Amino acid sequence: MSTPPRRLHLNAFLMTPGHHDAAWRHPDSQPHRATDVTYFQQLAQTAERGKLDSIFFADGLAVWGRLRSNVSGGLEPLTLLAAIAAVTSRVGLIATASTTFNEPFHLARKFASLDHISGGRAGWNIVTSGSVNEANNFNLEEHIEHRVRYERAAEFLEVATRLWDSWGDDAVVLDKASGVYADPERVREIGHAGPFFQVRGPLNVQRSPQGWPLLVQAGSSEDGKEFAARHAEAVFTAQQTLDDALEFAGDVRARAAAHGRAGLPLILPGIVPVIGATEAEARALEDQLTELQVIDYGLGQLSAMLDVDLAGYPLDGQLPEHILPTEDQVNGNKSRFTLVADLARRERLTIRQIIARLGGGRGHRVVAGTPEQIADALETWFRAGAADGFNIMPPILPTGLDAFVDHVVPELQRRGLFRTEYTGTTLREHYGLPRPAAQFSEPVLASASR
Amino acid sequence: MSTPPRRLHLNAFLMTPGHHDAAWRHPDSQPHRATDVTYFQQLAQTAERGKLDSIFFADGLAVWGRLRSNVSGGLEPLTLLAAIAAVTSRVGLIATASTTFNEPFHLARKFASLDHISGGRAGWNIVTSGSVNEANNFNLEEHIEHRVRYERAAEFLEVATRLWDSWGDDAVVLDKASGVYADPERVREIGHAGPFFQVRGPLNVQRSPQGWPLLVQAGSSEDGKEFAARHAEAVFTAQQTLDDALEFAGDVRARAAAHGRAGLPLILPGIVPVIGATEAEARALEDQLTELQVIDYGLGQLSAMLDVDLAGYPLDGQLPEHILPTEDQVNGNKSRFTLVADLARRERLTIRQIIARLGGGRGHRVVAGTPEQIADALETWFRAGAADGFNIMPPILPTGLDAFVDHVVPELQRRGLFRTEYTGTTLREHYGLPRPAAQFSEPVLASASR
Repeated sequence: MSTPPRRLHLNAFLMTPGHHDAAWRHPDSQPHRATDVTYFQQLAQTAERGKLDSIFFADGLAVWGRLRSNVSGGLEPLTLLAAIAAVTSRVGLIATASTTFNEPFHLARKFASLDHISGGRAGWNIVTSGSVNEANNFNLEEHIEHRVRYERAAEFLEVATRLWDSWGDDAVVLDKASGVYADPERVREIGHAGPFFQVRGPLNVQRSPQGWPLLVQAGSSEDGKEFAARHAEAVFTAQQTLDDALEFAGDVRARAAAHGRAGLPLILPGIVPVIGATEAEARALEDQLTELQVIDYGLGQLSAMLDVDLAGYPLDGQLPEHILPTEDQVNGNKSRFTLVADLARRERLTIRQIIARLGGGRGHRVVAGTPEQIADALETWFRAGAADGFNIMPPILPTGLDAFVDHVVPELQRRGLFRTEYTGTTLREHYGLPRPAAQFSEPVLASASR
Repeated sequence: MSTPPRRLHLNAFLMTPGHHDAAWRHPDSQPHRATDVTYFQQLAQTAERGKLDSIFFADGLAVWGRLRSNVSGGLEPLTLLAAIAAVTSRVGLIATASTTFNEPFHLARKFASLDHISGGRAGWNIVTSGSVNEANNFNLEEHIEHRVRYERAAEFLEVATRLWDSWGDDAVVLDKASGVYADPERVREIGHAGPFFQVRGPLNVQRSPQGWPLLVQAGSSEDGKEFAARHAEAVFTAQQTLDDALEFAGDVRARAAAHGRAGLPLILPGIVPVIGATEAEARALEDQLTELQVIDYGLGQLSAMLDVDLAGYPLDGQLPEHILPTEDQVNGNKSRFTLVADLARRERLTIRQIIARLGGGRGHRVVAGTPEQIADALETWFRAGAADGFNIMPPILPTGLDAFVDHVVPELQRRGLFRTEYTGTTLREHYGLPRPAAQFSEPVLASASR
């Protein structure tokens, strides 16, 4: 295992109107701004004021969850991040995009464009899309099987990285006098022909400031961990206990080391910080949010996570174990299924109690307390080696991010755990990761296109 | 034919480093800024200063033309326009996107997002992608046949418009007290199942300010004109003479009227204004650009337009007619083929002369003169009914757009032909077009997703 870095990394996971499923009913939240670009621009500026490494948007290709009691219908992340890039200068910009329902040429091109537009701040959270609702929007009746999705993802990433490398950094000569704009020898076809994709290339975007966007991954199933170990530079994960987090980090790091990638990927567990001036104030906010939960919505979410219909089972009874599937029977988010089922068993929670616990962060760790207590929670996991940083998931936005930036970040800075100023300009520099050199592919570009 | 509108419309067609194929070698051009977002943001701000209706980016899904002597490798238009939206407030933002190599859910979502981000300024130039180089980047060895591409385009547009209509304008209730965010009866599946696409919906973006982006089309083949007549609200076209332009406009308007769309689409011929303080100065600039042309590049472009290899034929001889295909044999841009072949025959041009003529605007009309002469050229076509406005294609950027905005626009305003201030905020308002009402589709959203 590599020596933990001296400073931790912080990513702000943004979502209207915050991560608690009742946030939209809280007076501090702004659910009416779900399609308002200035809402997200202001949040990004807050993250930048706090010197955070990056902001991040999750994504899905269908309406999420039940419509009645849940904010949905927001903006597509890559388009949104380009508009955010225009009003920020340092904070990294990470978009989720699916390898199952996209073509590598399109995504490689969009991330290269965002990387140019942002001056080297683009990151890609690679997902394989877990729901049949998404498949139904892309010409399929049934969802593609989990393992096949990951096989496609690996080939997708191979094509994308070769496209990003298809222009040498020195390809543009720009000699007005002699009439040479680009050196055709420095722009090459990739000639990819695999089971999922046939892509000739080259990309039609010049090589971008970072070369490749930062590659992020968030699935924690067996397939997901293996993908992360082989390809990811940072991993978003959901862990409830320090023991689980240590086990996960050790597992992924050992797998990565076996692939010759010691020190990678950076492990960033999610945390929902419920911040109060006193611990009692934080607990009161937590209770207030629990009281605002719409129980039918929570039951639907829990049913989806567990891949069973829990309607009709007593809310104050425990989970009906006999109807639960096993992880290998789940074709969606396998790791989230296991996390929730284990949590319920370990703490012998009723259905109602599970809904309350999951409301805070959909399975992510929730910590309620003072800024010092939140900083303690981060420092403990960081020093224990369970995390290289954290995926910060404010329960309510914008207030939860303001509180984190104004009160927790200064505390982390006082402890010497977090930067007080950006030292680099690109997202890769923030995370201490190198810029990939362009690896040229053969054959060279056919003469007809020169 | 409808009465011509009182005021003409102006779109700025932006392209690094201008529309003349030798622009990049001219001292005034800035080809080093091909991936610099501020270059395009500044051009958009210039267009907005001139009260232009819109800016527009063409697009292709492969490296365009020959690499050696041509600026290529720029930014993806939708991503770029989101970054431009952030620094402008009125000018319309039109992106080209292909129906042949995209999925309707993705594009509908991106345009809806751009429309939200820009406050109702998104437009879509619908193209079917004419080159085999593009097919080769999307798993195909051969290109899809012209007519099939247009059949797919029609179904694509049907799916996209139904997705844009899948959220009623009043779907978001947002009652924090009762816990109702959206009315599930006002968000509906589209249940589309056709030969090309199966899409369940609804879209995962709330209905946008314009409802639908402005729908633009640019192909002038038989299939293209029929598509424009049925679906387009504005048409970009290339016409060399007033007679041809009148015939084209009359043809498209008559076809549209036959489909019950009298007064649509708006016809916007391209024009390359080479502007000088005197006519002699304008001619000198034109000559200077012709002298900077790279003849090999021009020959390659001409060969591509005509779908034959002209290498080896005498530059000072006429086109070798016996090797030219007929329009029905061309599977790329059919209308551009015919325009170029007709131009060469009509004026008995040598290959060298054709290259010089096409260098200015790839087949678009080039007018060199004073601001008054440019205004005359626009006014004549506008008053004759050959145009509802123009697609302005500056030969060199940024200087050519500055000259147009600073000298031609005021002249048009003096003549009462162009607005002196924006009267609306959306792109549809600029073009005098209505906002489509949401047409709900059956069946309603399945209860499982509510």
